Amino acid sequence: LVSVLSSAIIVYRLPWTWKCSKLLMKFIHAGLNTIAMILAIVSMVAVFEYHNARNIPNMYSLHSWIGLTAVIFYSVQLFFGFAVFLLPFAPVPLRAAVMPIHAYSGLTIFTMVIATALMGITEKLIFSLKNPAYSASPPEATFVNCLGLLLVIFGALILWMASRPHWKRPPEENAKVLRPIGGTPEGTEAESTMTGGSNADKSDLRINSEAARKQNLKFDEAGQRSTM
Amino acid sequence: LVSVLSSAIIVYRLPWTWKCSKLLMKFIHAGLNTIAMILAIVSMVAVFEYHNARNIPNMYSLHSWIGLTAVIFYSVQLFFGFAVFLLPFAPVPLRAAVMPIHAYSGLTIFTMVIATALMGITEKLIFSLKNPAYSASPPEATFVNCLGLLLVIFGALILWMASRPHWKRPPEENAKVLRPIGGTPEGTEAESTMTGGSNADKSDLRINSEAARKQNLKFDEAGQRSTM
Repeated sequence: LVSVLSSAIIVYRLPWTWKCSKLLMKFIHAGLNTIAMILAIVSMVAVFEYHNARNIPNMYSLHSWIGLTAVIFYSVQLFFGFAVFLLPFAPVPLRAAVMPIHAYSGLTIFTMVIATALMGITEKLIFSLKNPAYSASPPEATFVNCLGLLLVIFGALILWMASRPHWKRPPEENAKVLRPIGGTPEGTEAESTMTGGSNADKSDLRINSEAARKQNLKFDEAGQRSTM
Repeated sequence: LVSVLSSAIIVYRLPWTWKCSKLLMKFIHAGLNTIAMILAIVSMVAVFEYHNARNIPNMYSLHSWIGLTAVIFYSVQLFFGFAVFLLPFAPVPLRAAVMPIHAYSGLTIFTMVIATALMGITEKLIFSLKNPAYSASPPEATFVNCLGLLLVIFGALILWMASRPHWKRPPEENAKVLRPIGGTPEGTEAESTMTGGSNADKSDLRINSEAARKQNLKFDEAGQRSTM
């Protein structure tokens, strides 16, 4: 689940994908998130059935509360992501206004999922290790602690990749050239909505992606100056 | 601890502080972080003494591993923050190169601290609630779960504030005018290093902070276009 989520997050951040059409990348992003959502639902059903079979109460722990909150936010995120960015109806100013919220809540949900996993690992180690107990540090405890630490490092790396301005996909250079690769009638319309609506900003768009990348870097430096 | 850390993080993000000198704000940021570090050390000593007094092993849980990792990274962060941004020796290009790393690791450490707190809450509820147990959802369990959820919401709000480009402190308009407010000989030197070294970029600096804020917004929009 975490690895599918991570792939969905960084899919726009891989420079070798910048030559692929924006629409294709959106489908991959949406598809990976849909797979992650299905995995989340399957896991939750499994947990409830396991609890019921063993007469363990449901939803009593902080782990379950934060986990369920994350899944609910995630379904809202998927719904709005689909409605605003994949369907062709949302105008460009709305997409531009929603994008920072979409990116922020995506990363926040990802972080909540990792925190939930860490709490779940803690619970599981306390409940399952009895003789010797968790506090006696048997090899399983040390091994699973290492996995938890790796999960934190992995999450931190994904957040680093997702927040570097120069790993951002550059703005579309020429939507018409790229369109045939992933084009469907609906998709083509979506893409043309996106490029067609931004007439006011067209003069700002750079003509090749390398220049656009440098432009992103320049924005980054300007941002740095203002935080110094 | 979390509230002191949060204040330290958002101290540059409060528009009413933008009229204060950069150096004064840096001292407040460094001072709050130093207080948080002292609180962290005091709490850790208390934990070890409590464990030793009750014959509970130290450092066996994932909570303790991630917590100690966060504290170690935090002390490294404080050391480099002090050496690079507060002392007057680091040249501007070095400060500019370190700033995104400093901001990223600050927010990552903050997130790790919250995750550690959530794991600690989970442990404490499991170990302390015995009759009725945590799984029977006594009022204490529900109350502390709510506190944990509030901690997540609080952390998410701080990360939102810290990542909005238009809440970024605008670049210095005129360091000389502001200097007397928080000026010390050492500080003055630091400030002049910072402004003196950026001659090449001076044409980019805006002459009043409102224009600078709008400029930040423009960068933000440009960034949004490239993620759309």
